[in-house]
Amino acid sequence: MKHPGFWKMLTVAVCMVLLGCLQAQEPQGHVSIILLGATGDLAKKYLWQGLFQLYLDEAGKGHSFSFHGAALTTTKQGQEFMDKFLESLSCPKDVAPGRCAELKDQFQRLSQYHQLKTSEDYLALSKDIEALVQQEGLREAGRVFYFSVPPFAYADIARNINSSCRPGPGAWLRVVLEKPFGHDHLSAQQLATELGSFFQEEEMYRVDHYLGKQAVAQILPFRDQNRKALDGLWNRHHVERVEIVLKETVDAEGRTSFYEEYGVIRDVLQNHLTEILTLVAMELPHNVSSSEAVLQHKLQAFQALRGLWKGSAIVGQYQVYTEQVRRELNKPPSFHSLTPTFAGILVHVDNLRWEGIPFILMSGKALDERVGYVRILFKNQACCAQSEKHWAAGQSQCLPQQVVFYIGHGELGSPAVLVSRNLFRPSLPSQSWQELEGQPGLRLFGRALSDYYAYRPTREQDAYSILISHIFHGRKDSFITTENLLASWAFWTPLLDSLAHEVPRLYPGGAENGHLLDFEFSGSQLAFSQRQLEQLIPGPGSAPMPSDFQVLRATYRESPLVSAWPEELITKLASDIEATAVQAVRRFGQFHLALSGGSSPIVLFQQLATGHYGFPWAHTHLWLVDERCVPLWDPESNFQGLQTHLLQHIRVPHYNVHPMPVHLHQRLCAEEDQGAQAYAEEISALVTNGSFDLVLLGMGTDGHTASLFPQSPTGLDGEQLVVLTKSPSRPHHRMSLSLPLINRARKVAVLVMGRLKREITMLVSRVGHEPKKWPISGVLPTSGQLVWYMDYDAFLG
Amino acid sequence: MKHPGFWKMLTVAVCMVLLGCLQAQEPQGHVSIILLGATGDLAKKYLWQGLFQLYLDEAGKGHSFSFHGAALTTTKQGQEFMDKFLESLSCPKDVAPGRCAELKDQFQRLSQYHQLKTSEDYLALSKDIEALVQQEGLREAGRVFYFSVPPFAYADIARNINSSCRPGPGAWLRVVLEKPFGHDHLSAQQLATELGSFFQEEEMYRVDHYLGKQAVAQILPFRDQNRKALDGLWNRHHVERVEIVLKETVDAEGRTSFYEEYGVIRDVLQNHLTEILTLVAMELPHNVSSSEAVLQHKLQAFQALRGLWKGSAIVGQYQVYTEQVRRELNKPPSFHSLTPTFAGILVHVDNLRWEGIPFILMSGKALDERVGYVRILFKNQACCAQSEKHWAAGQSQCLPQQVVFYIGHGELGSPAVLVSRNLFRPSLPSQSWQELEGQPGLRLFGRALSDYYAYRPTREQDAYSILISHIFHGRKDSFITTENLLASWAFWTPLLDSLAHEVPRLYPGGAENGHLLDFEFSGSQLAFSQRQLEQLIPGPGSAPMPSDFQVLRATYRESPLVSAWPEELITKLASDIEATAVQAVRRFGQFHLALSGGSSPIVLFQQLATGHYGFPWAHTHLWLVDERCVPLWDPESNFQGLQTHLLQHIRVPHYNVHPMPVHLHQRLCAEEDQGAQAYAEEISALVTNGSFDLVLLGMGTDGHTASLFPQSPTGLDGEQLVVLTKSPSRPHHRMSLSLPLINRARKVAVLVMGRLKREITMLVSRVGHEPKKWPISGVLPTSGQLVWYMDYDAFLG
Repeated sequence: MKHPGFWKMLTVAVCMVLLGCLQAQEPQGHVSIILLGATGDLAKKYLWQGLFQLYLDEAGKGHSFSFHGAALTTTKQGQEFMDKFLESLSCPKDVAPGRCAELKDQFQRLSQYHQLKTSEDYLALSKDIEALVQQEGLREAGRVFYFSVPPFAYADIARNINSSCRPGPGAWLRVVLEKPFGHDHLSAQQLATELGSFFQEEEMYRVDHYLGKQAVAQILPFRDQNRKALDGLWNRHHVERVEIVLKETVDAEGRTSFYEEYGVIRDVLQNHLTEILTLVAMELPHNVSSSEAVLQHKLQAFQALRGLWKGSAIVGQYQVYTEQVRRELNKPPSFHSLTPTFAGILVHVDNLRWEGIPFILMSGKALDERVGYVRILFKNQACCAQSEKHWAAGQSQCLPQQVVFYIGHGELGSPAVLVSRNLFRPSLPSQSWQELEGQPGLRLFGRALSDYYAYRPTREQDAYSILISHIFHGRKDSFITTENLLASWAFWTPLLDSLAHEVPRLYPGGAENGHLLDFEFSGSQLAFSQRQLEQLIPGPGSAPMPSDFQVLRATYRESPLVSAWPEELITKLASDIEATAVQAVRRFGQFHLALSGGSSPIVLFQQLATGHYGFPWAHTHLWLVDERCVPLWDPESNFQGLQTHLLQHIRVPHYNVHPMPVHLHQRLCAEEDQGAQAYAEEISALVTNGSFDLVLLGMGTDGHTASLFPQSPTGLDGEQLVVLTKSPSRPHHRMSLSLPLINRARKVAVLVMGRLKREITMLVSRVGHEPKKWPISGVLPTSGQLVWYMDYDAFLG
Repeated sequence: MKHPGFWKMLTVAVCMVLLGCLQAQEPQGHVSIILLGATGDLAKKYLWQGLFQLYLDEAGKGHSFSFHGAALTTTKQGQEFMDKFLESLSCPKDVAPGRCAELKDQFQRLSQYHQLKTSEDYLALSKDIEALVQQEGLREAGRVFYFSVPPFAYADIARNINSSCRPGPGAWLRVVLEKPFGHDHLSAQQLATELGSFFQEEEMYRVDHYLGKQAVAQILPFRDQNRKALDGLWNRHHVERVEIVLKETVDAEGRTSFYEEYGVIRDVLQNHLTEILTLVAMELPHNVSSSEAVLQHKLQAFQALRGLWKGSAIVGQYQVYTEQVRRELNKPPSFHSLTPTFAGILVHVDNLRWEGIPFILMSGKALDERVGYVRILFKNQACCAQSEKHWAAGQSQCLPQQVVFYIGHGELGSPAVLVSRNLFRPSLPSQSWQELEGQPGLRLFGRALSDYYAYRPTREQDAYSILISHIFHGRKDSFITTENLLASWAFWTPLLDSLAHEVPRLYPGGAENGHLLDFEFSGSQLAFSQRQLEQLIPGPGSAPMPSDFQVLRATYRESPLVSAWPEELITKLASDIEATAVQAVRRFGQFHLALSGGSSPIVLFQQLATGHYGFPWAHTHLWLVDERCVPLWDPESNFQGLQTHLLQHIRVPHYNVHPMPVHLHQRLCAEEDQGAQAYAEEISALVTNGSFDLVLLGMGTDGHTASLFPQSPTGLDGEQLVVLTKSPSRPHHRMSLSLPLINRARKVAVLVMGRLKREITMLVSRVGHEPKKWPISGVLPTSGQLVWYMDYDAFLG
């Protein structure tokens, strides 16, 4: 979330330096903190207070400090603003008023305003700091530049700091950056590259202020301090789901110029909720206080995230939002915004710890309550011998068990950590967390508050105070590294792209939303629980739905044609394949299936993997129709696609899987290794008459099929069962079943999908038997059956 | 459960035949029903009433009937008993008293008592029936013999029926058998073989009266009639768990002579609950009214059941039970029974539909309530955007969703089918099931009764009436076929054997049990939720527990030795392997692991598969240490064991798995196929210097290791990396890594477990380097490390 008025710019600067050390223990050098955007809203609300807190916490420990407000504002006006902010600073509760005034006075004397516009201004600031340090006989320890300015100003400031305001050798530089860090992967990368030309990675501290929220910052320490209890629990065998939720009651009014460009996913999910997700999901480093280890494990967690697709999300929009945008951005009445103000996302973490466990991210504006939490719900693995009337909340393992990091607001009104009493008694650092007193009648997550061990911070601290302290101490794990940032954008960008034209469900706001925004997952697909009865906005999403059409049966090239919308088509093909398999196993005891690579079959593989319980996998042999001459573990390998999308999810015996031997003796498709002959022999040995029960083919836009390409005669006729061929596109070398072998199959299915195939589909419908020009036209099983499966895009256009 | 007095025997017989047909529509032949044990308790309580009901239902539809009570009792006494039973028969509620008396009178005239002792008695009965049929000018349709007698009497009766009382050609014979059908797999098989010598399979109707309970009998029709709603739900993606529960408040008093021999598992779980389990789990046949299809699908469900082991069960015993046994069976005060009166069992169904979903079976005596139900709880796959305060029971998908087949008793007091209102509105046959009226305040399974669509039978019917009707109609799917029976015993017997010496947890009975009998599962292991504080019975189970000992570290043959109880040993070995793997991947990018077959590593494989999230499987290559010369899909193949227990549960890329090529060109280990050389080449190509990172070996009682056997020099030295060898035991032909290759490994772990290994362990500890006599003594890595892992049984004895 962006703080209102964040964009406000500054226009002056003065340089006046005062130095001070509260009862220094041992001189550890001087630290200068330069707050850029010192008169803006964020500075006013949080940053000055955070710097004051830093001063209170650290000044007695050896470092000396100076604080430099900076902006574009004139010196006079800027200093006036700043003085006002500094006057309103508050001390912790336990500091007496007199002492507080004294401390504030000291802090004010250490703080000056500077107009920073030109490189000369920066150079002057640098000189001033050096002079001051020298004059006081100190050593310079480092400089912090806090960028509380909009991103378009970053480059200029960064260039000036780099060229004119770096500290001398031996002293560190830290620049603190505020989001947004780009709008998608590309822009984030550009921004990162630009910043990288001025600063080292270790000099940059990108703030996600949720990492400073007390309950969030407690996730890793909690996992660390309760390792013994959690070791057996924190995994897919015990966790049922993880919910990461941030609900707001406010809407985007007054901020629509920002919001319209970003929307809820970029505003909240890509950063805050994703960071929290990694803290929950990552493998716990041996030493959680090692920033390096934490950051590395976080990155590994990103790598384990399963890619998102359109079906991973549901989006909604507060129904007043479009009107607000029209008003604030002067849009015509015909304007309809597609920007989501509510989103639910289903994330899967594909590693052995979390495989199959849903991580649900949800956030939205204009909801019924303001609350943020991470809830880890455990599976109920108990069975209770007594009637439920006799269950005791603290003892019965049949009642829900959960761990909640309560970020704030909501019915509890403060950050908290909750652990069900029937789970375990947690250990929390007693100096910073204390047991929460009961609030009779309060229920949270389906249970009475008294059913939890509940803790709240001894002292509530603002996120920025915590993060400023972490910057000072160089705790990089509380910030977003470039790698982390790009990993997050790489994860979110494809989804954002695929949602760009999605019409969000409109919702009335507040409690009136009822069950309208409830959603459910099934496999890796999210959907609203309630069907929408009418299309509220006519927009790009109002095209006919697949369910509006029946599966169409016709003929194509004198063979049966099945045509439908993609979803129905794949469903039909999958169930046809299953029926063929069941029949083959019944008749022959086994089923020989040859599969093509490419992208079209992926959805088919997924459907076969998750929906077909009766599929006789144990008696199925899987063969490849063709293969690229790359190692089998290459992502480009057809086999690799088969492995990822099908093999990993089913139970085909190892020896029933027959990858093509394209990689022998550490060479790829070398004639002399006779891989094609070996595959042909394997087929002859196992497949009766070399007749596959089913061969699944595709069709390229050039009319190729398998890896048999136009104008290249190999494999189109002759005795060879398996051939090496050349593709016009990379990788050029291929291995393929030959046309004569394909035509021996009992059944051949050709799957053709997508608009790009429309032209070739038209063309091939008209040509005769011309395999040299259009290899697909040579597919004509000698005694088997040929069936075409085409989606409407390919067939009807 | 056995009905009290079941054993009561009979001693007389008379033959008097009356015939009758209530308003016959069209003559369909005559049916004689002979009730053996006609004066026993079961007959008195259920069977005569069931026969009367059959008469009422069927006599108007074309068949004529005669009913023959039979026993060993004298004619006079038997007839008196019988008359008393017949007098107390009752008519359905809608029959007027006058009409009822008339019907009872008709029925009594059709019913006679016979003393059946000798084969002459049976012959006489047969002649009587024939005479009667002839005299009335009827055709004989068939004969039902209902065995309401103890199993030891079965053989004699069966022989007599077969030799002297079969109906003539064209008429059918049906014999109805009551449990127990054996005590374990062997005795059940013997009994089945014996019966099979007298009757055809299709002639036998084994009764499990739970299959006649209305809610149980409704499971398949419900699944069939709600296919559309259930198709997507009835699988591992949507079901969270299935509970099949039968709780009793009574204890075994008065029946301890039976109970002491059987216990709760044989009494209730092996039959009733298992039958219910198959009805829930089986694939639904296309046509559920086809007995053949139903029976076949049930058998397939049995085949998918994962084998039970000791950890699949928890057992308890009502604490007064031992005293009851002492009293009733005249046992001395020192006697302690180990017979369980309570059991919880975790069953997994290993197919694509149910994999990973717990089926929990629970039954016990002296519990807090009498109730029976099957509860299918669905996963909560919803996320609700509103605060839980606003959830509506019929709409919110975040509230529990379940389908319950309520067998009877409990708070509801009658059979019922319940479906959560937020799930779907079920369809039930309206002539036999009607909506249940609300009982305000009644809560079932965590929800108010009003939150369910709830149905009860229009007319409550006794299970025996239903089954007698099914016998008459030849509905074999309501009975236990021999295959079904043996499949069930094959499933239960290993568990029963392993529990034979298990000390059950004592429980006080009733509500006082508190949470004492609650249990939990983790992976495939069940355990009581509450730890037992003290050992209440000193018995065979009071041996020291694994946790009483630390892992012992010592040396063996001058190499490090790790010794512990089996569980700790495997845990330690698994984590050592993981650590070696992580280190190897870090250093070399891959980990080459060579594994032995046999039974000891199975638990290791299971632990690696389920507990080691950090294991770098994607970079691990799996090799075989040795292999039997059998096809890879043979259950004896080492590879098959590896596949079942490890490969299916992890994600090793296909091309990283290296089975030994023992089966080439359709031959097994033929020298000329050069399989050993091919494996050696594969190793040389992929494993640097042929040095495996870890080789896991075992040790045979003859001192063999890998497939290197004493007195057979092959593979003990020389250049060959992989060799063909001969084993003294079957299958004799083997392929094995050679000793020189094994000794090139960076690390060799030898796992030795079990008492059988004690002697060889002792012996080998003393011998020197004598690989020809003791191949294991030749294991001495050239530059790698050797570690022995031995459990206390093998090492300390």
